[in-house]
Amino acid sequence: MPLYALTLEYHGGPFVGWQRQANGLSVQQVLEEAAAKLNDGIPPASIAAGRTDAGVHAEGQVAQIELVRKIAPDRLREALDFHTRPYPIVIRRAALAPPGWNARFSAIRRGYRYRMLNRRARPALDDGLVWHVKAPLDAGAMHAAAQGLLGRHDFSAFRAAACQAKSALRTLDRLDVARLGEELVVTAEARSFLHHQIRNLVGTLLEVGQGRRGVEWPRRVLEGRDRAQAGMTAPPEGLCFTFVRYAEEPDWA
Amino acid sequence: MPLYALTLEYHGGPFVGWQRQANGLSVQQVLEEAAAKLNDGIPPASIAAGRTDAGVHAEGQVAQIELVRKIAPDRLREALDFHTRPYPIVIRRAALAPPGWNARFSAIRRGYRYRMLNRRARPALDDGLVWHVKAPLDAGAMHAAAQGLLGRHDFSAFRAAACQAKSALRTLDRLDVARLGEELVVTAEARSFLHHQIRNLVGTLLEVGQGRRGVEWPRRVLEGRDRAQAGMTAPPEGLCFTFVRYAEEPDWA
Repeated sequence: MPLYALTLEYHGGPFVGWQRQANGLSVQQVLEEAAAKLNDGIPPASIAAGRTDAGVHAEGQVAQIELVRKIAPDRLREALDFHTRPYPIVIRRAALAPPGWNARFSAIRRGYRYRMLNRRARPALDDGLVWHVKAPLDAGAMHAAAQGLLGRHDFSAFRAAACQAKSALRTLDRLDVARLGEELVVTAEARSFLHHQIRNLVGTLLEVGQGRRGVEWPRRVLEGRDRAQAGMTAPPEGLCFTFVRYAEEPDWA
Repeated sequence: MPLYALTLEYHGGPFVGWQRQANGLSVQQVLEEAAAKLNDGIPPASIAAGRTDAGVHAEGQVAQIELVRKIAPDRLREALDFHTRPYPIVIRRAALAPPGWNARFSAIRRGYRYRMLNRRARPALDDGLVWHVKAPLDAGAMHAAAQGLLGRHDFSAFRAAACQAKSALRTLDRLDVARLGEELVVTAEARSFLHHQIRNLVGTLLEVGQGRRGVEWPRRVLEGRDRAQAGMTAPPEGLCFTFVRYAEEPDWA
């Protein structure tokens, strides 16, 4: 049976997250039910590169679905984009997956963006897409602190209690903090992340940005490997899964 | 009575536009009713730099309100930002207006941005903030065509039938078209604009971007002064009023 790769954009607001759950609507369920309409009514099992949490957005999530018969990738993209209506889930690209390719396990790099609106007035235009932080943040200090976290480490201090990964060892390749006017943008890249890792990193860097902690503090938290020492978990609405890279890219239509 | 200047951000989606109307909720009504709570229950009359249409957004609209008594600009900003809840209208800045200043008539430059999402998939993250245009657009050709419209001209060809301005003479100072990935952004600046002028300009440039008309065509439409020759009126959701400049800026808190 042919395996397809899909690039998805979605607004996390209305969903319980990527993964199917008994207590609400997931991105996975909407996608699989849309695909069922092209698959003799059978919802195909899907796998995603990243199991985004409730409220987390994506502009470059990658998922795979196996269908009972071949369909041209461009037609698949168009049909799924139609059947996911009216939900805020769209299919940006589709491709026949290369042999042996897996949306989750073949990924060699994942990118996320975390947006903070750093001003006194609440967000009107970007409500639901940013974390509103009223107190002025020092982006330079946050960026400097972030550089001390790059590389291969045990990230236990920044890991959710519910994290199911066997090991907390991860290699953080990029963690940039930049100011764009009233907005602070955190860009994070790694082969893979632990559950809540980026949101916990952002919540920790926030304390540096507010001047409550020094630039060296996040590195000490990392080395302590104790979640209780780190900052808060930043809220989901600021986070967006931006891209996935593969050693062998699907031939996107 | 003290006159205040306010910088507003709002999402145009839920409103009939800036101006009060019998048939629905306006930004002006929400602002004036919020201000009434600081004004002995009397809604003060407000004037805006630009009377944005239904569905048009703002991140830098400027309005004035006259209150019965003095209040510190920062407290005014905070209180209005509170009382405009839960509507997507926020007060970014407030100031005591300079003597003789008028939000509308003292403005010397207005800036707008028009966003198009130029891809096949519908928008999920920026739904309501962009015009979705599926067919590929040539931003370079649109930009070149736009340069032929700069300067002082009779813009009758790009003016709404309902436009109330006495003269259609306007000086267009900037009309840039740039591609940012899947997005096309039009940046327009002038002392003032006619009703629907930017949306009609965008709808006209679109035909150049699609290759249906040559780069010189919008200039010929301008010179013809006939609205029937120009392109469609681009939908309101892509438009955002970004800034207003004054010869004498209020001392923003």
